[in-house]
Amino acid sequence: MRKLTFLLLFALMLTVVKAQTEDEKQLRAIYDMALTKGKAYDWLNYLSNQIGGRLSGSVQAQHAVEYTKAQMDSLGLDRVWLQPVMVPKWVRGTAEFAYFETSPGLTTNVPVCALGGSVATPDGGLKAELIEVQGLEELKELGEEKIKGKIVFYNRPMDPKQISTFNAYGGCVDQRYSGAAEAGKYGAVGVIVRSMNLRLDDYPHTGSMSYGDTPVENRVPAAAISTKGAELLSATLKLNPAIKFYFNQTCKVYPDVQSYNVIGEIKGSVYPNEIMVVGGHLDSWDLGDGSHDDGAGVVQSMDVLRLIKASGYKPKRTIRAVLFMNEENGLRGGNKYAEVAKQKGENHVLALESDAGGFTPRGFSFDTDDANFEQIQSWEKLFKPYLIHLFEKGGSGADIGPLKEDAIVLAGLRPDSQRYFDHHHAENDTFEHVNKRELELGAATMTSLIYLMDKYGPIKPKKIKG
Amino acid sequence: MRKLTFLLLFALMLTVVKAQTEDEKQLRAIYDMALTKGKAYDWLNYLSNQIGGRLSGSVQAQHAVEYTKAQMDSLGLDRVWLQPVMVPKWVRGTAEFAYFETSPGLTTNVPVCALGGSVATPDGGLKAELIEVQGLEELKELGEEKIKGKIVFYNRPMDPKQISTFNAYGGCVDQRYSGAAEAGKYGAVGVIVRSMNLRLDDYPHTGSMSYGDTPVENRVPAAAISTKGAELLSATLKLNPAIKFYFNQTCKVYPDVQSYNVIGEIKGSVYPNEIMVVGGHLDSWDLGDGSHDDGAGVVQSMDVLRLIKASGYKPKRTIRAVLFMNEENGLRGGNKYAEVAKQKGENHVLALESDAGGFTPRGFSFDTDDANFEQIQSWEKLFKPYLIHLFEKGGSGADIGPLKEDAIVLAGLRPDSQRYFDHHHAENDTFEHVNKRELELGAATMTSLIYLMDKYGPIKPKKIKG
Repeated sequence: MRKLTFLLLFALMLTVVKAQTEDEKQLRAIYDMALTKGKAYDWLNYLSNQIGGRLSGSVQAQHAVEYTKAQMDSLGLDRVWLQPVMVPKWVRGTAEFAYFETSPGLTTNVPVCALGGSVATPDGGLKAELIEVQGLEELKELGEEKIKGKIVFYNRPMDPKQISTFNAYGGCVDQRYSGAAEAGKYGAVGVIVRSMNLRLDDYPHTGSMSYGDTPVENRVPAAAISTKGAELLSATLKLNPAIKFYFNQTCKVYPDVQSYNVIGEIKGSVYPNEIMVVGGHLDSWDLGDGSHDDGAGVVQSMDVLRLIKASGYKPKRTIRAVLFMNEENGLRGGNKYAEVAKQKGENHVLALESDAGGFTPRGFSFDTDDANFEQIQSWEKLFKPYLIHLFEKGGSGADIGPLKEDAIVLAGLRPDSQRYFDHHHAENDTFEHVNKRELELGAATMTSLIYLMDKYGPIKPKKIKG
Repeated sequence: MRKLTFLLLFALMLTVVKAQTEDEKQLRAIYDMALTKGKAYDWLNYLSNQIGGRLSGSVQAQHAVEYTKAQMDSLGLDRVWLQPVMVPKWVRGTAEFAYFETSPGLTTNVPVCALGGSVATPDGGLKAELIEVQGLEELKELGEEKIKGKIVFYNRPMDPKQISTFNAYGGCVDQRYSGAAEAGKYGAVGVIVRSMNLRLDDYPHTGSMSYGDTPVENRVPAAAISTKGAELLSATLKLNPAIKFYFNQTCKVYPDVQSYNVIGEIKGSVYPNEIMVVGGHLDSWDLGDGSHDDGAGVVQSMDVLRLIKASGYKPKRTIRAVLFMNEENGLRGGNKYAEVAKQKGENHVLALESDAGGFTPRGFSFDTDDANFEQIQSWEKLFKPYLIHLFEKGGSGADIGPLKEDAIVLAGLRPDSQRYFDHHHAENDTFEHVNKRELELGAATMTSLIYLMDKYGPIKPKKIKG
């Protein structure tokens, strides 16, 4: 009996060793191919340098839809299609202009840009006294008496002590997102927000904001100021609290326009109805060319399909690259994709998003149950040769969020985050700041996870006894 | 009895928990300070932008000695001194110039730079037919008949499949280091080497080379060509093997000059004779400003001392920052430091070098015995919040190599390597390519290792029974 057990164990061990070796080989092949024959960088070059910033509803966004569809068409996938979605169209208008005035006629220009979704200033711009606050709490404490008629200057910086710069962002972005809606309640006439950037430099960083349920007539214009501008403004205010701030912006909301998610698919050979999504968002802000946010995620997702095909692996499950439209200012693409999936009763078992920049990948963050997380952790050693070490529970990605339900594994690629907010939503989010190898390593890391999840399958939740 | 054991175990556990918590707090304090009050970036700004490239024997190298000594003097250390060392003085001369000629008068310029240590071309430059080889092996196979009178063009690229770009460098650099000495044996008149760079761009990358025991009169000039230049040259050679290559360089070796290692020290409070070195090299190549190679390591090492002092921790052992001179083309500083240490009978227990760029730190590589490596591995979890995950056995650093003996732990900081060779030894190794936070995280990571090694002490080798 003991001999039989031993033999069985030995046979099992052999199988494990063999499987292990196969997986090691497959990952090696994926990384080798990505690093020697990757297409992601060339695609990104086109998206960034031939098309540029791709704000929802813009001509560039439409070009990006057409370009990525044509590229996916050329990959010999089983199906490539456009999924219609109506998107908001906010337009920046003429370049913003701002200065502070220390005494009449004595002015200093500072770099600003309208926040996405903001209303314009009145014709000819807006000039008023400033009041600096460290956040929404301080605004409340000051109250209407101190705020009314002024421009509120939100100046709480990102916390440099956070190792993940996304945590520092999370601790600050309420000022940008809700600053105007809140300040408006106390009679502010406008809002200036310190850019979400850990560096001191001259780039203002835009990003989405919301007026919540503020009636249209009560909405006040909101702009971001560069971090250096914010430092200068704050220092000047300490010397002279009576300075005035002027800014002019002509941004405007137009009616929604037709746009598309771009989707490419490899049909699963065994479980075609089990769908694994890999994606990024095709839209970007308009200031740079959106290379890191999120051109990188788009081209990596496309390359996942190409690498899977080129590696000769026949996936058992259906793999889709989804290039979501309108993550930045509406999430309409992500919502539409989930809505259609639900209508059709599609069974999504995994969704993986890359939307944290094209930097050296460090690992993944997973939104899933313990059983699936444990299985994923058992793959960690396979990733070690590629210096992929971060396997944590946490958020995944904005676009795939609407797919969330009990049975799906949601995952986000986690690249090195140190440089991300140097470029995020700013004029310097451009192609030359993406390193080819780092981008390719990200694509290979995503492909490897897709391969393993396809091969071993997700752990399905146990049916609850009736 | 069992109760007593339990109580003892419990007491022991409490101690472990307490120590753990103290270490966690200390590391947190170190990282917080580095990220909020770090000096490394300001120092690097001065070294890079006020002084610039610091080739051994240059005026800039002397400025760098004076500047870093003055900065260390201002830190309130127990001792700061200059350690004299004679260094070679190789000077580039006027800018190099090169082209290939497809037919008489029809020329195409390509970017080249002399390799460090190379002789000049004959007056007016050197023109000859080219022969492309993939390395020293192919050179040997071709032999004198094919090589004589020609310029040898070494064109084996770095292997993009290597995840550590240092491994790719290691697999290629023989062409640069020994290419001229070997080609000279077969009658070559000059050598052109593809730059050690994984990117395709227009920067030629210099670096050290050696003629070995080649008599002076038989030494042939050697230059690096940019990777794009190499690709163009190789493609042209395939079309027309008869093209000629011209290059002109006026570099020259002068007699050795006086220079210095710069050393700052905090005296140990309990074991002052046990010395822990943390260092980088103060010299750099002359093309860029040496920000990554190795301004970063210099300012990080200085900041280790400052962070230790500022954290309020009183080290039991002596901690020295050593800024080595002449790593790039002679290693005289490293050799001198080890020689003096030996003469004085100093007891070095640890040496940690940062010479792999100022990028996001990933961990360390250790050259030590199993007992010390195991102790170090027991600290891994303390580094986890800072995403420091790489603790491997391997090389350490060139400057600290000469200190190697059985009883010392040698260590090298291992930053993310993907971008390093984009800049290495080239005109674009400049300050703007260093990210402040990444540099500071490196300094904090080094300081944390020094703190732990000081607190727990190295594991001393067991005496062999007589």
